Amino acid sequence: MRTHYCGQVTAADLDQSVSLCGWVHRRRDHGGVIFIDLRDREGLVQVVCDPDRADMFAIAESVRSEYVLRIEGRVRRRPAGTENAALTSGEIEVLCHDIEVLNAAVTPPFQLDDDNLSETVRLTHRVVDLRRPQMQENLMLRYRVARAFRRFLDDHGFVDVETPMLTKSTPEGARDYLVPSRVHPGQFFALPQSPQLFKQMLMVAGFDRYYQITKCFRDEDLRADRQPEFTQVDIETSFMNEGEITAVIEELIRYVFQDAMDVELPSPFPRLSYAEAMRRYGSDKPDLRVTLELVDVTDAVEDVAFKVFSGPASSGGRVAALRVPGGGELTRGEIDEYTKFVGIYGARGLAYIKVNDASKLNEEGLQSPIVKNLHQRALATIIERTGAQSGDLIFFGADKAKVVNDALGALRVKLGHEKGFLNGEAWCPVWVVDFPMFEYDEDEKRWTACHHPFTAPKDEHFELLESDPGACLAKAYDLALNGWEIGGGSVRIHRADMQSQVFRALGIGEEEARAKFGFLLDALRYGAPPHGGLAFGLDRIVTLMSGAESIRDVIAFPKTQRAQCLLTEAPSDVDERQLRELHIRLRQKVETQVEVAKG
Amino acid sequence: MRTHYCGQVTAADLDQSVSLCGWVHRRRDHGGVIFIDLRDREGLVQVVCDPDRADMFAIAESVRSEYVLRIEGRVRRRPAGTENAALTSGEIEVLCHDIEVLNAAVTPPFQLDDDNLSETVRLTHRVVDLRRPQMQENLMLRYRVARAFRRFLDDHGFVDVETPMLTKSTPEGARDYLVPSRVHPGQFFALPQSPQLFKQMLMVAGFDRYYQITKCFRDEDLRADRQPEFTQVDIETSFMNEGEITAVIEELIRYVFQDAMDVELPSPFPRLSYAEAMRRYGSDKPDLRVTLELVDVTDAVEDVAFKVFSGPASSGGRVAALRVPGGGELTRGEIDEYTKFVGIYGARGLAYIKVNDASKLNEEGLQSPIVKNLHQRALATIIERTGAQSGDLIFFGADKAKVVNDALGALRVKLGHEKGFLNGEAWCPVWVVDFPMFEYDEDEKRWTACHHPFTAPKDEHFELLESDPGACLAKAYDLALNGWEIGGGSVRIHRADMQSQVFRALGIGEEEARAKFGFLLDALRYGAPPHGGLAFGLDRIVTLMSGAESIRDVIAFPKTQRAQCLLTEAPSDVDERQLRELHIRLRQKVETQVEVAKG
Repeated sequence: MRTHYCGQVTAADLDQSVSLCGWVHRRRDHGGVIFIDLRDREGLVQVVCDPDRADMFAIAESVRSEYVLRIEGRVRRRPAGTENAALTSGEIEVLCHDIEVLNAAVTPPFQLDDDNLSETVRLTHRVVDLRRPQMQENLMLRYRVARAFRRFLDDHGFVDVETPMLTKSTPEGARDYLVPSRVHPGQFFALPQSPQLFKQMLMVAGFDRYYQITKCFRDEDLRADRQPEFTQVDIETSFMNEGEITAVIEELIRYVFQDAMDVELPSPFPRLSYAEAMRRYGSDKPDLRVTLELVDVTDAVEDVAFKVFSGPASSGGRVAALRVPGGGELTRGEIDEYTKFVGIYGARGLAYIKVNDASKLNEEGLQSPIVKNLHQRALATIIERTGAQSGDLIFFGADKAKVVNDALGALRVKLGHEKGFLNGEAWCPVWVVDFPMFEYDEDEKRWTACHHPFTAPKDEHFELLESDPGACLAKAYDLALNGWEIGGGSVRIHRADMQSQVFRALGIGEEEARAKFGFLLDALRYGAPPHGGLAFGLDRIVTLMSGAESIRDVIAFPKTQRAQCLLTEAPSDVDERQLRELHIRLRQKVETQVEVAKG
Repeated sequence: MRTHYCGQVTAADLDQSVSLCGWVHRRRDHGGVIFIDLRDREGLVQVVCDPDRADMFAIAESVRSEYVLRIEGRVRRRPAGTENAALTSGEIEVLCHDIEVLNAAVTPPFQLDDDNLSETVRLTHRVVDLRRPQMQENLMLRYRVARAFRRFLDDHGFVDVETPMLTKSTPEGARDYLVPSRVHPGQFFALPQSPQLFKQMLMVAGFDRYYQITKCFRDEDLRADRQPEFTQVDIETSFMNEGEITAVIEELIRYVFQDAMDVELPSPFPRLSYAEAMRRYGSDKPDLRVTLELVDVTDAVEDVAFKVFSGPASSGGRVAALRVPGGGELTRGEIDEYTKFVGIYGARGLAYIKVNDASKLNEEGLQSPIVKNLHQRALATIIERTGAQSGDLIFFGADKAKVVNDALGALRVKLGHEKGFLNGEAWCPVWVVDFPMFEYDEDEKRWTACHHPFTAPKDEHFELLESDPGACLAKAYDLALNGWEIGGGSVRIHRADMQSQVFRALGIGEEEARAKFGFLLDALRYGAPPHGGLAFGLDRIVTLMSGAESIRDVIAFPKTQRAQCLLTEAPSDVDERQLRELHIRLRQKVETQVEVAKG
């Protein structure tokens, strides 16, 4: 039907006859001539309809925005001064000989170039929304990214193997989406939260290097960067240690940025231990574009008169300082705003010192109501460790370590971007390694797995599994980029006895372990190779790359934050017959029936 | 950890030191020396352990089948006469210097080379089963096929776009798998039976060329070639007509066979109309390797005395003949078996004529009890149209057309393969085109869509939609290969008014159409381009290519015919808490509770 994409007709085609198909992006009538900007996936071209061909011109007069046309014409140079350098086709126009209206269109629900649309409107009319150049670009970028992942993995001996979507519910971690079985009354499949155990099975089966770009599901309350279904680039490999795995993954992600975006990431990526990341950035996914750092002063304030510091410092909490160079300029209003901001993360206040004169460790040099309650040694340590200069400001966090890290870690990023404490790099990847095996769940009074229960402990920490679980480090690694976790993985446990021991440490008894993970324990006994891997969140990576505000802008048909598809109106009611076949009832209806039976 | 894959060490590596990782495939002790066949994804290598290195030898003595080893050694030529031409590594062996046991293994549940395993055993111990070379090959082939599809489509401007897994239930066609919503009590998502409407939306949104390799779901009773979840290569394109779409698809499938299997498919593929395919082969997915053909004799037997023929022939049924060259040799027992076979397809018998002398149109030349009840004109027509020669046998089917086509169509294939009526080609693709738009559902007394309700009628048949739906042909096409339908598609309706008209022809009222497909009708009004596409069944294609007996042999973790995963034991019971969160109850349990309430 066509010889070219609209957006790809150029001066190289001058004097050629072309056939083009596309949408009427804009129609202008000017000096008795009709100009149509015809749009397709590749861009726009200007079509000129002269009144000297009466039949054609009559059709041109009838077309409206978003009509679908096929036109034939001849490529000619635009009159001097009317070129449009913003378009690939900007040097030329097509003099129209013939128009066919392939389909008419009603007036669209909104203008494609309207940037002030509510998300509800956009998602309800997603088909029209997807025509907007930004959405076209986002989805094309997503495609290029996925393709780049595949190309690299294909070229490095990784085999794409599909794992099941209808699988077993294991109520660990997040909430499962369940699928009632028709054939087995009262039983349910679960949609996978990740292909974790299947990819480990594939390693035991000898596939050596595996990947899959696949949907995963979590029925959790949604945040800006979460969707009920999300896409994971899932990777696993045998006979490689932690260093070898992270090296090939690093090469992979560098390739993806190069191939999809023409961006060169640094090489090698910096590495931080979890402990160091928390100490310096208060985060296990630090944004390294921001140059500010947290400084620990806990030891220096254990015995100060200021209880807000000495309390946490002397009872296992953390006191940390964040130096803001030139921060003496911050207004009272700004500081109030930051105080409110850290409150979101549970901080009960935001102490600070204005450094008027760094050489004077007293209330003259250091302006703050707290100074009089800090002794000289504390003040000296604070100034020395933060490297504060005259004119700076130092914020403090003092609380349980988690609150301090969350609050000052977030403040660090906010200040960095708002006040320009940035290193100037566009992309700052960082490996965070040496995660703890376990974290203590205060509510449930038990240890839980930091990564997942299949992660191997460091060889030299094996003994700690029993004696001191909190001190036991894991062969786990996360890849963070600009403050987002984009991937995470670990070396897995490949011996059944060690797996059982980790289950025990997590309070999963032998019977429960067998019921839930019997097939894994069996597999580990049939000759499992050393193996490990990682999974990337594709949606997040593309969101970062595109600069989109929401993960929903890089998904063709996303769900709202209420987990609905506004386009198709899913979820929806279903027939009673369908429920009967699945051996289930709605709870509400049933309660009514029970009442009837009682009443 | 390794320098080579086991299966890739060759004479090119002579005298090199190598490190290898893999599984003990076999261990033999011979003349005081231990031979280990070490296996990985790429194949086997022979490792020789001499007793002169005592530590290493002691370890070698301890290893058993399926232990995971890392070995170091030197490559040397095998002694003359002990080479194994079946192995890539067959000219060499590795003299072992060092062994590390990476993991021990219990005795496997079965020998990897045991070919007489029940499927239950294989699926229960799938991890071990997947180590068998045939299963490794099948999944590697599947990977190469998927990769070839992607390569071609990437190179031809098709964009991979992901469509949702949690979508809307539209109880048309097959039964949906449902997913209860936690956030919206009493409502359900459905897993997609295909991304059909989403890919049409993407065309309306202007993506121009789309593909996706994705899971689809149908909750139907399973047959040998069906699974609850299956994988579709889904393709859609805009601004192409039927001929252009089938041409690019044909190029695609030719590329896939070339790239994944080094097989050259014929070019161009033959094309058959649906009517001709049914007439000559009794099937819309004819196996063209078989040279036998059905011949229609309905018109010639309308008025014969033999009621078995004249009955169907005079009341809209079909009478067809299948000539078997040299079939006079078939034994009574064989014919009885064929008679039983066609019974599976509803045929109430299998009339036949042995052609003793094709020149004599009487009971002497034509041996059969039915001959005396067929008049001369009928006999002459039968002999002439079938081209029967002396020594042949002619089978007959006489019944409703569907029964005759199913029965003789299947008999044709069975006879062809059993008795060698084959054209000698390994791969016979064929396009079947010009499908009817509708077929009449005798049970429900209404027209249903042959392909799906979004398929466009032939331009010249548009008027028939209302006046004579049964005569209306569709722009639909199937690709059949060796008797299997491997792909099917159509040009879609791109105008809202035509879509409404087709819904009407299918008895879908305006209100119902809006409730179920309102978003499609809206999309068609916003400027939908002409578009069409096709979907391939990946599982089937790979099953065909691999020669596997079952689709389950080309899926890593399949479900049984009872829709269970024997490895993970899914589906399974779930916690009452999970059901409560999803606002559902089990039907059985509820009935018990109601009884308690009553009692």
